[in-house]
Amino acid sequence: MKEDVLYHFSLSTSTHDFPAMFGDVKFVCVGGSPSRMKAFATYVAQELGLEEPGVEPVNICAGTDRYAMYKVGPVLSVSHGMGIPSIAIMLHELIKLLYHARCSNITIIRIGTSGGIGLEPGSVVISQQAVDACFKPEFEQIILGKRVVRSTHLNNQLVQELLLCSTELDEFPVVVGNTMCTLDFYEGQGRLDGALCSYTEKDKQQYLKAAYAVGIRNIEMESSVFAAMCASSNLRAAVVCVTLLNRLDGDQITSSHDVLTEYQQRPQRLVGYFIKKCLKKA
Amino acid sequence: MKEDVLYHFSLSTSTHDFPAMFGDVKFVCVGGSPSRMKAFATYVAQELGLEEPGVEPVNICAGTDRYAMYKVGPVLSVSHGMGIPSIAIMLHELIKLLYHARCSNITIIRIGTSGGIGLEPGSVVISQQAVDACFKPEFEQIILGKRVVRSTHLNNQLVQELLLCSTELDEFPVVVGNTMCTLDFYEGQGRLDGALCSYTEKDKQQYLKAAYAVGIRNIEMESSVFAAMCASSNLRAAVVCVTLLNRLDGDQITSSHDVLTEYQQRPQRLVGYFIKKCLKKA
Repeated sequence: MKEDVLYHFSLSTSTHDFPAMFGDVKFVCVGGSPSRMKAFATYVAQELGLEEPGVEPVNICAGTDRYAMYKVGPVLSVSHGMGIPSIAIMLHELIKLLYHARCSNITIIRIGTSGGIGLEPGSVVISQQAVDACFKPEFEQIILGKRVVRSTHLNNQLVQELLLCSTELDEFPVVVGNTMCTLDFYEGQGRLDGALCSYTEKDKQQYLKAAYAVGIRNIEMESSVFAAMCASSNLRAAVVCVTLLNRLDGDQITSSHDVLTEYQQRPQRLVGYFIKKCLKKA
Repeated sequence: MKEDVLYHFSLSTSTHDFPAMFGDVKFVCVGGSPSRMKAFATYVAQELGLEEPGVEPVNICAGTDRYAMYKVGPVLSVSHGMGIPSIAIMLHELIKLLYHARCSNITIIRIGTSGGIGLEPGSVVISQQAVDACFKPEFEQIILGKRVVRSTHLNNQLVQELLLCSTELDEFPVVVGNTMCTLDFYEGQGRLDGALCSYTEKDKQQYLKAAYAVGIRNIEMESSVFAAMCASSNLRAAVVCVTLLNRLDGDQITSSHDVLTEYQQRPQRLVGYFIKKCLKKA
């Protein structure tokens, strides 16, 4: 192709110099909310001693409101919206961006929120593997009308490195577990408080307990396609999500705004510590 | 429930008076981009003579960056992000909002963007029905680990009313056709320009031509769950999307920003005209 338009980033190879803009990127952190990924950029800049007092991080994707992107030294912080399709669009364009920029040895980490199963709210889960709503470590897609299944394997060494960081940091509970990735937040996760619901509390408890029994510790909506696409593109990938509630105790997220804000900083603190440690070693 | 927290709207029945805030709503318009839904609120305010010079529309969901919501008289304008999971979360919370507000006789219209098949770019498609990537008028979900299929039927009378409006307006080409709803923008829609691609131009053309042969005129990523959830909740629903390109001619969206902006206003103009006409009759 003469030109590659990354439409949902509002970036193009004909108008932007990708190697100059992104060539030094080594870590990519992604998360659903644009304001959270801006906050992460600010936090990482402080941690790495790269902050400029009074200067706000600049949104590289300011030409669109589909995603937001910030760069702090070797760290790229990108939002991906909610759900598999939304993160998949972002990942296609991100992987092309990294290719055009000739980046190498990239580590990519999703820092997100999730519902926990059998964990104290605020616990952080490092995903061993991503599984679907039938508990299988697979991501299924329809391509040209045909079913294609991809593995959702994550990098085990990276899991261990992050776990070691959490021990060194010792600030909040962190576990390694399987992460279930669903296409819906309400019926798809067995919630009883959606607009539609055709099952009972008992059915829900049975489903969540079966999930717990096969090692699932949290539920979110992006990890399976994230794992599948990163593996297909040879990116070292991890998923680190905080749990906002224990789904065995309820469905609604009723903690105060301040408590939830502090919870959401936990994956950022762990991953910020990890990045700092990697850069010291390098 | 004593309290219902609509978490992704940052609204709750215990802190907001839903009947007072939303009781007079009769039309809900939804679209992916928050800035586009703000622009629609501004446009509708002008059309209905409800604008206040110098006053910006107020985002009712300002407490979160997941969705944006604006209200202009009887019209609610809400963003839903990209893809089935993202719009499904919004619809669950919207349907609960309308229920708590005791709204009745609601018409809900998705005004979006799409890729066209065999149409001049800028054409608007009013969806006859939403179909999946295998061309079936079905929305499949996994609920408690089991496959559940819902119909994606849309209101035929509303299709005819909107078509009549387009004839009266006579500003741009409008057709009635089937709309294919996919879980991915790149491989899921047969694009050759994603980060991953395992098929040829010939395979792609064959797939898109087979879609055209069964009446599919455009492809987007939200219509099936939108149709299914609105039908299950007895909401009169329609999907009106502009086509940004003709997929038989290419995959990239390369039109200028100004051309795309004008295209994106077309569903707004048609639906704005429709709402004005309904309110005159009432």
